[in-house]
Amino acid sequence: MSPSLPSLAAGQVWLVGAGPGDPGLMTLMGQSALEQADIILHDALVPEAILALAGPAARLEAVGKRKGRPSTVQMRINARLVRLARQGLRVVRLKGGDPFVFGRGGEEALALKAAGVPFRIVPGVSAGTAAPALMGIPVTHRGLARSVAFVTGHGMGGDEPRDLDLEALARGAETLVLFMAATRMASIAARLLAAGRPATEPVAFVIAAGTPAQQRLVTSLGEAAAAADALPPGPPVLIVVGPVAGLAEILAPEIPAPAASPLSTAPRLAS
Amino acid sequence: MSPSLPSLAAGQVWLVGAGPGDPGLMTLMGQSALEQADIILHDALVPEAILALAGPAARLEAVGKRKGRPSTVQMRINARLVRLARQGLRVVRLKGGDPFVFGRGGEEALALKAAGVPFRIVPGVSAGTAAPALMGIPVTHRGLARSVAFVTGHGMGGDEPRDLDLEALARGAETLVLFMAATRMASIAARLLAAGRPATEPVAFVIAAGTPAQQRLVTSLGEAAAAADALPPGPPVLIVVGPVAGLAEILAPEIPAPAASPLSTAPRLAS
Repeated sequence: MSPSLPSLAAGQVWLVGAGPGDPGLMTLMGQSALEQADIILHDALVPEAILALAGPAARLEAVGKRKGRPSTVQMRINARLVRLARQGLRVVRLKGGDPFVFGRGGEEALALKAAGVPFRIVPGVSAGTAAPALMGIPVTHRGLARSVAFVTGHGMGGDEPRDLDLEALARGAETLVLFMAATRMASIAARLLAAGRPATEPVAFVIAAGTPAQQRLVTSLGEAAAAADALPPGPPVLIVVGPVAGLAEILAPEIPAPAASPLSTAPRLAS
Repeated sequence: MSPSLPSLAAGQVWLVGAGPGDPGLMTLMGQSALEQADIILHDALVPEAILALAGPAARLEAVGKRKGRPSTVQMRINARLVRLARQGLRVVRLKGGDPFVFGRGGEEALALKAAGVPFRIVPGVSAGTAAPALMGIPVTHRGLARSVAFVTGHGMGGDEPRDLDLEALARGAETLVLFMAATRMASIAARLLAAGRPATEPVAFVIAAGTPAQQRLVTSLGEAAAAADALPPGPPVLIVVGPVAGLAEILAPEIPAPAASPLSTAPRLAS
């Protein structure tokens, strides 16, 4: 049996989470939105297999890859959403994972609100929980983690301002899930170690989660910087730091998922 | 168009996330699992509207409400999952939100692994991100929060051991999402204030998210203990602490959701 789902009306914009990459992890409401939409503005990273859920008449438009500073690109997207809605179209803004977890969905919602465009948030499965889960890592686990923090690598280490208190997070969050942080892993690992996290602590890199290219690499905090340097360029990487990351060695999927193969060259955690 | 979804084979157990309560926020794979299952062991809190997605022949069994210490109850569930799988049944273990976010799914997965029962994790939309989103609260937002921590109220304050470093989380996580913490709000708020979070900081209580009984209450950290005392008993409550909680006043849904009404007696955030 299927639930009754709301209608995407003309002139509305729905901000829809696409989930971590596997179309089976789209929500029923998200799939219904894709079927109803006249136009779908999607992040460049949303996989083909998810775009294939769109209705046959829907126009697909990748956004966010045009040149310019991120804030300029975001303003263009906001303006385009408002313009399309005012043309009376049924508009879906499709974002990887969840629109409100490092997705800038809040900014788009504020722009729509300011313009008087009716909108709806359709939450998605966040990569922050699902990418680890697909590798056998529960971000919380009794005896290992009763707290988990999602942190963006933007703004941490490297040339970025150090206004995020990563040291406090290192002490407070038993599991750390780092988004967009692979290129800053050396600085991040150094700060976590300095804040008292042990060098032997497991670290898992989850690469291209939920897609056929999905791979994992499990190492330790002491080796994480070197491991990050050796990652393949291109696909999105999520990094899990904490005792729970070690469960990947035990709970990694046995039932064949879409090619959930470990990296053949992966360094393994020396128990 | 629908994606091709994997088959739930006889003798397998799938740990499926039911999402935050709205059946439209089930995943396609989760719905498919409910349709294929011979038996569904579900948390008592999973709403009727989601159980209605089960196939007509499926047996539904609520678990977790029997008497005994939580660890005993969990061991009984683990043993029952193994026994049902060994009978050759197609088994779904349906959990609210995501099975790996405060859902003890990791413990069940370990038990299945130890027993040699093939299992699959089907991630769900976590209440930790979706319950705030359905109230107009993005847990991350540029300029307000680049980090968010999910924390369980079990083990914090009251008679519980203080081994969770809530003070460090208060300094490190710009947004705090507290699960199962309403009865301990006085102690938690006092610790957050002592750690330097301002008394004027917005706090949102999200009650029965994703269900027709969904309600919200927005207050401040200084008033949060009193507000928690006045909450209706019974339905699950998720608490969001941080500047983003103030966005609920701006971004609360306009398109009618399943009865997303504010509490009529809700104290409002001054300014």
